[in-house]
Amino acid sequence: MVQFSDAFRQDLAELMRWRRDVRRFRTDPVPGPVLDRCLQSFALAPSVGLSQPWRLRRIGSAAARTAARDNFRAANADALRGYRGARAETYAGLKLSGMDDAPEQIAVFCDDATTQGAGLGARTMPETRRYSVVCAIMQFWLAARAEGLGVGWVSILDAPSLCAAWKTPKDWTLVAYLCIGWPRDDDTAPELERLGWEERRAMPPLEML
Amino acid sequence: MVQFSDAFRQDLAELMRWRRDVRRFRTDPVPGPVLDRCLQSFALAPSVGLSQPWRLRRIGSAAARTAARDNFRAANADALRGYRGARAETYAGLKLSGMDDAPEQIAVFCDDATTQGAGLGARTMPETRRYSVVCAIMQFWLAARAEGLGVGWVSILDAPSLCAAWKTPKDWTLVAYLCIGWPRDDDTAPELERLGWEERRAMPPLEML
Repeated sequence: MVQFSDAFRQDLAELMRWRRDVRRFRTDPVPGPVLDRCLQSFALAPSVGLSQPWRLRRIGSAAARTAARDNFRAANADALRGYRGARAETYAGLKLSGMDDAPEQIAVFCDDATTQGAGLGARTMPETRRYSVVCAIMQFWLAARAEGLGVGWVSILDAPSLCAAWKTPKDWTLVAYLCIGWPRDDDTAPELERLGWEERRAMPPLEML
Repeated sequence: MVQFSDAFRQDLAELMRWRRDVRRFRTDPVPGPVLDRCLQSFALAPSVGLSQPWRLRRIGSAAARTAARDNFRAANADALRGYRGARAETYAGLKLSGMDDAPEQIAVFCDDATTQGAGLGARTMPETRRYSVVCAIMQFWLAARAEGLGVGWVSILDAPSLCAAWKTPKDWTLVAYLCIGWPRDDDTAPELERLGWEERRAMPPLEML
């Protein structure tokens, strides 16, 4: 039985406290070996039926990045039109993506048609394939933060239209667009809290059913 | 800038290597303070728009547990009928849930109608609310393993019918049914691999778009 120490558990809690959704990046590159180490955590993630349905693409070309940025801008302008008054003002002042600066950008998809795992566990809840991809992303996020890297998850996207622009295989669903790089600053409080959009709430006591 | 050490990063990778989907539990109880510490990692998880949409219920009463177990058995029998020959034989021999033994069982829902976060980031991709819940579950899973606890995620369930049996609020979606307890054994290889259902594959090199 492998045992972990109190010191490790404390550091793990610290890591979770300092992990942030980062949108402000320095532009200096991420060394390949560092990124590779972080990406190893994908292969260690749990997946329904051992289906490992995650598929990754490094978004590196000008064309692929422009498609993503244009898609984000349109979705973000649309979202802004959904708010009124003070909310709209706050929203307009938020920085919701690091796509202009992040040196590394990775699109993470789920292959909903994979035959790996022969469908085990995904018959009644096929969404667990996408959830497996999210588990892998969360492990990557923590591994990256442990290296000092920031990760930002952009979800203000029209995913089907972006996948069409990228000519993504038809069975793949975009789960996340990740911006990755060295963060400009560090904080234990989320930017949305610091800028007055929303406050974190404590976990309520666990109710029994 | 908080820095983490090489030793911590190595332990974090070890934690990910030893984390398993556990289905074989000892029946001795999980001390309350240990479980509480692990549950703290929910509140530290990222969530779209800071919406914190996770909702937890401890499944403790005989009625609530029986509803879950019966639901699993029916869904599992259904799933078995979907396989033929050697696959069906292997499937029938797998232990796919620890619901009979796990001392702690927690249902994790997503409140799809929460107003917290005012919908930020979830307009075009509302599924990111459920993905936020999965992020929190993954953090809990790692925190639990760091305490020596095993977690098993049961997805062979007819979720709408189980939610109806539990009289779950109508806007809540079941994301995961978690079995929690001290594992009977420990391995770096998933049980599905050891029992010949599927093999883990290495991550392919990152392709550039």
